[in-house]
Amino acid sequence: MNLEEDTGTTVLRHTDDTKPPFSWRSLLFGTPIATSDAAHQTIGKAVGLAVFASDALSSTAYATQEMMVILILAGTAALGISSYLIFAIIILLAILTISYEQTIHAYPSGGGAYIVAHDNLGELPAQTAGAALLTDYILTVAVSISSGVAQIVSAWPQLYEYRVWIAVACVIFIMTINLRGVKESGIIFAIPTYFFLAMTLITLLVAIYKYFMGTLGVVQDPPMDMMPVVAQPITLFLILKALASGTTAVTGVEAISNGITAFKEPRSRNAGITLIWMSVILGSFLLGITFFAHLTAAMPSEEETVISQLARTVTGRESFLYLAQIFATTLILIMAANTAFADFPRLSALIAADGFLPRQLAFRGDRLVFSRGIISLSVIASLLIIIFQASVTRLIPLYAIGVFLSFTLSQAGMARRWFRCGKIKPGETLEGKGKTLHFEKNWKLKMVINAAGAVFTLVVMVIFAMTKFQDGAWVVVILIPAIIGCFYLIHRHYKIVARNLSLEHYGAPPRVVRHRVIIPLAGVHRGSLAALRYARKLTDDITAVHVSIDPVETERLYHKWEHYGDGVRLVILESPYRVLMNPLLDYIDHMYAQCQSNEVITIVVPQFIPEHSWTGFLHTRTADNLRRALLHHKEIVITEVPYQIEQKSDAGKVR
Amino acid sequence: MNLEEDTGTTVLRHTDDTKPPFSWRSLLFGTPIATSDAAHQTIGKAVGLAVFASDALSSTAYATQEMMVILILAGTAALGISSYLIFAIIILLAILTISYEQTIHAYPSGGGAYIVAHDNLGELPAQTAGAALLTDYILTVAVSISSGVAQIVSAWPQLYEYRVWIAVACVIFIMTINLRGVKESGIIFAIPTYFFLAMTLITLLVAIYKYFMGTLGVVQDPPMDMMPVVAQPITLFLILKALASGTTAVTGVEAISNGITAFKEPRSRNAGITLIWMSVILGSFLLGITFFAHLTAAMPSEEETVISQLARTVTGRESFLYLAQIFATTLILIMAANTAFADFPRLSALIAADGFLPRQLAFRGDRLVFSRGIISLSVIASLLIIIFQASVTRLIPLYAIGVFLSFTLSQAGMARRWFRCGKIKPGETLEGKGKTLHFEKNWKLKMVINAAGAVFTLVVMVIFAMTKFQDGAWVVVILIPAIIGCFYLIHRHYKIVARNLSLEHYGAPPRVVRHRVIIPLAGVHRGSLAALRYARKLTDDITAVHVSIDPVETERLYHKWEHYGDGVRLVILESPYRVLMNPLLDYIDHMYAQCQSNEVITIVVPQFIPEHSWTGFLHTRTADNLRRALLHHKEIVITEVPYQIEQKSDAGKVR
Repeated sequence: MNLEEDTGTTVLRHTDDTKPPFSWRSLLFGTPIATSDAAHQTIGKAVGLAVFASDALSSTAYATQEMMVILILAGTAALGISSYLIFAIIILLAILTISYEQTIHAYPSGGGAYIVAHDNLGELPAQTAGAALLTDYILTVAVSISSGVAQIVSAWPQLYEYRVWIAVACVIFIMTINLRGVKESGIIFAIPTYFFLAMTLITLLVAIYKYFMGTLGVVQDPPMDMMPVVAQPITLFLILKALASGTTAVTGVEAISNGITAFKEPRSRNAGITLIWMSVILGSFLLGITFFAHLTAAMPSEEETVISQLARTVTGRESFLYLAQIFATTLILIMAANTAFADFPRLSALIAADGFLPRQLAFRGDRLVFSRGIISLSVIASLLIIIFQASVTRLIPLYAIGVFLSFTLSQAGMARRWFRCGKIKPGETLEGKGKTLHFEKNWKLKMVINAAGAVFTLVVMVIFAMTKFQDGAWVVVILIPAIIGCFYLIHRHYKIVARNLSLEHYGAPPRVVRHRVIIPLAGVHRGSLAALRYARKLTDDITAVHVSIDPVETERLYHKWEHYGDGVRLVILESPYRVLMNPLLDYIDHMYAQCQSNEVITIVVPQFIPEHSWTGFLHTRTADNLRRALLHHKEIVITEVPYQIEQKSDAGKVR
Repeated sequence: MNLEEDTGTTVLRHTDDTKPPFSWRSLLFGTPIATSDAAHQTIGKAVGLAVFASDALSSTAYATQEMMVILILAGTAALGISSYLIFAIIILLAILTISYEQTIHAYPSGGGAYIVAHDNLGELPAQTAGAALLTDYILTVAVSISSGVAQIVSAWPQLYEYRVWIAVACVIFIMTINLRGVKESGIIFAIPTYFFLAMTLITLLVAIYKYFMGTLGVVQDPPMDMMPVVAQPITLFLILKALASGTTAVTGVEAISNGITAFKEPRSRNAGITLIWMSVILGSFLLGITFFAHLTAAMPSEEETVISQLARTVTGRESFLYLAQIFATTLILIMAANTAFADFPRLSALIAADGFLPRQLAFRGDRLVFSRGIISLSVIASLLIIIFQASVTRLIPLYAIGVFLSFTLSQAGMARRWFRCGKIKPGETLEGKGKTLHFEKNWKLKMVINAAGAVFTLVVMVIFAMTKFQDGAWVVVILIPAIIGCFYLIHRHYKIVARNLSLEHYGAPPRVVRHRVIIPLAGVHRGSLAALRYARKLTDDITAVHVSIDPVETERLYHKWEHYGDGVRLVILESPYRVLMNPLLDYIDHMYAQCQSNEVITIVVPQFIPEHSWTGFLHTRTADNLRRALLHHKEIVITEVPYQIEQKSDAGKVR
């Protein structure tokens, strides 16, 4: 640093020249990338697909199965309905893809549901989208990890009884990695995604080949644990419920719209093409898995996933391909959970910057706060896993409502945007909230597309909430409004603070006319003399106060003070009840009551600073106790004068 | 208060004239008694028995049963051995009674194992006794509550599956009562003890009567859950193991020696007679219960206690007497747990006063610390109950080692004391550690008695540890040394602190010659101006420092400061990485490096004090962060200037 400090204002640039320390993590994950560097690292379409597709593609691991879990209630014959339902889901996927394609072009700097709702619909819809998305990220972690563990358990059934703890261990593992802050390094993300793509493609191609050769066969020893004793009739409710389960397949489609800035220029074009690729792959996989699950007569089960049954029937239980498919599926599910770990703090920062979450969350450099977010996410996700016993089927009813709510708000926001664009005369602009809008040529078509997306996702959300209300969706229906309530409580507090701190109608504060110091004295020692020395520099009006609980001790203190106390007056408070704080507080209150206006009392507390922080609990934190007790006393300031305990120099002499 | 503060030294007596507030607890337990009043409340022998016997007498509820639990491994025929073992236990009881009788007369002001070991054996044995007793108190809570719940479950088997949670609820209930500080009010304690005495006596008398009439019969439908499939041979190991379980009956005998001061004068005589009464009753009950359990062919069980089987066989399952016996047994077990809640903080205070536990524990007036001790005890006891599923049988292996270790140390200490007394010439005195010793006439006999007590309890402890090592005693064998290790770590720290703070070879500290103030500035508002106003009174050498992460924001701050900053110089630290603390810390470090000796830097931090403490997490605790980071910088003082946020006056205007 180079300072010229005696000029009125000095501006210094902070250069953080501390190199990242060496660690085993650096070996594993490479040196962390500084924020300023990250901007220069943009990715192409192939890597972009790998980075953003894990959430969407991983849902193929459970979507088909979860449809079948519902349908089997009406007996094995009903399982075939899944082949029809999957077409409805692919239509939904197509609508969403076109809708988000438009969002990507309209928001080249990133258009997540929160931003789009905030720009176009206002504060409450934006906070609703925020609450829905935060809920969704937590559930993504719980569902993806549970499904990942279900794949492992399918291959090694003896691990079944440990599934909950394996899942929790996975969450802790991902948490640990994220606590140090892993940057989205393209290549590491590319490997699992393309591995999964390749394996699933191979499995499906072999299945097609065998199907046409007539050698496909059916699942040997299918798990029968979900087989109902008495089959229900096939009702519309049942079909809608199965459809709702299946719609979890399209969660994750929005991922690219959040991360457009990561793409190489032309950003929007590259991101848009990647989105289309992703949707085509997702659609094909869904179709393939659902069809072949039906053809091979796979059964929904808690014990073995449909993917596992399909893979072992196609490639053989003992084959390398089977194990590779299981491994790839597990890996992409873990990657999907990891995405939520990256998105959660990012969205929190946006919400915090608007004053609806603690402001500290907006400063991503504040490692402490960032860590708390990640730890909270892990703890809540782990709790969900424990409560729902790592069962995807039991977690699913909570899952998709948040996703579809944010889809609806995002699409509705886009529709509103096009409508407002349509009102602008060509060549003119409109200054909207944070955005400058231009006239758009095909605004009517674009509006209709996004509006259709909004309506479809709204319908899906309502179907989902209604059919799964009893199974757990009610939790989310309560939770999201509760989170929104918290957002507004926080926002209200910040508004009050801002009003209190405002300098409007505020003259300069009057000078302090009198300054008294009180030193609470537990004993006369180097620490208390350091406090006295400091107090001497503040004012001449100093009172040392000792609370006496032992007359002998007090007598000794009195004589020591005569010698060392430098003539400063000493007040001894006798405490027959052996309490320390109350007499001191009463005395301070008494002094406080006598204060004139513009008089300040400073309480100077000697505070030991032990060399090892573990010893902190061995000393009374008098300053903290006073601070708590005197919180609402204006004009009382509490100052700790630290006195450092040094162990090393004396360590040899001790004992 | 009446102050004459301008004289050199003022002495004020703190009179706590706040009356205890009305509460439902006052209704239940009477108004709490102030410490100073408690000394005047002494008790007679009858009440004394009630107060101190609950721990000892309550062990009759499980001791016989726990012997039988071991013996049944060798088949029902082996159960009869318990009748012989109980005589060995009664002999042990007799030796302990005579031993403690001597302690009571030698220590009229209270002679617990810790004090006796401390006075006569030295520091390490005393801390060993302390660690053993603290462990013991925790286990007393766990064992007594578990046994109490086992009684309830015996009468209402449908509660069996909830036993763990009933037990935890009991612990929480006792904790709640103790948190507010229930004083040992004689009459309340007398009721359960005498109720139990009366009920057990009635049950045994009816049993004797029926036995001689030939109408006693055997237990109907005895629980068979502990019946082994194949009976083991009767080995010495098995018998010793059963004996070890039975010795848990004598835990609690030491209680009176801790509380001699509570008795009316002549204290020692009264306490001694009470001890003998207690032992006689305890011995008779043990004998009676063990004999009749054998005669009625009661079976050890997790589902129904032996007491319950005995009572229902003697008085009938549906009789009022049966339910009263169960209720009385449960009650006295809960009283026994409550005793541990009183003893735990009392012993902690003694150990803390010697500097082996946090000093704050020595001040019983400090409600916060006292509460922490009680909460810790409850949490650990609850964990034990949960881990061991409220099974007395599974808890017992951990239990008695601590008790017998403290017995041994206490008796060995007494033996050593008599030996030293014997060395003194009649009429002379010896100043021992904290005690003045006189010649004692029968010192040889007394020494032999206490030495015999020490040897017997040592043998029991070794038998206990060996036979139950695998069943859980190893935990205690590791735990007690670990606790002692912690004691010494704490002690070492206090010694280092004392050495550091000592005023030996310490001249008066030099005056502070220069005082600089740094004000970290997040924005220019009423809070920061309050800090500036305060800093103005401290020194003229003030620098305001702003960390800039947003140029627009900084520009605004700069202009505001020009207007409101009163000419104080402003340093702006640019932070391209958006981190707040690091640039500030670097700047402070830079200033610190320039410091001359006897120069002090005070960092004056504006700190909002919100009206509601829940909003605390919404603001960065800059002062705390700085304090943590600058802990080991000498000559840096951190001062928070509070600025109170007021909600009420503005609440109407907000939103």
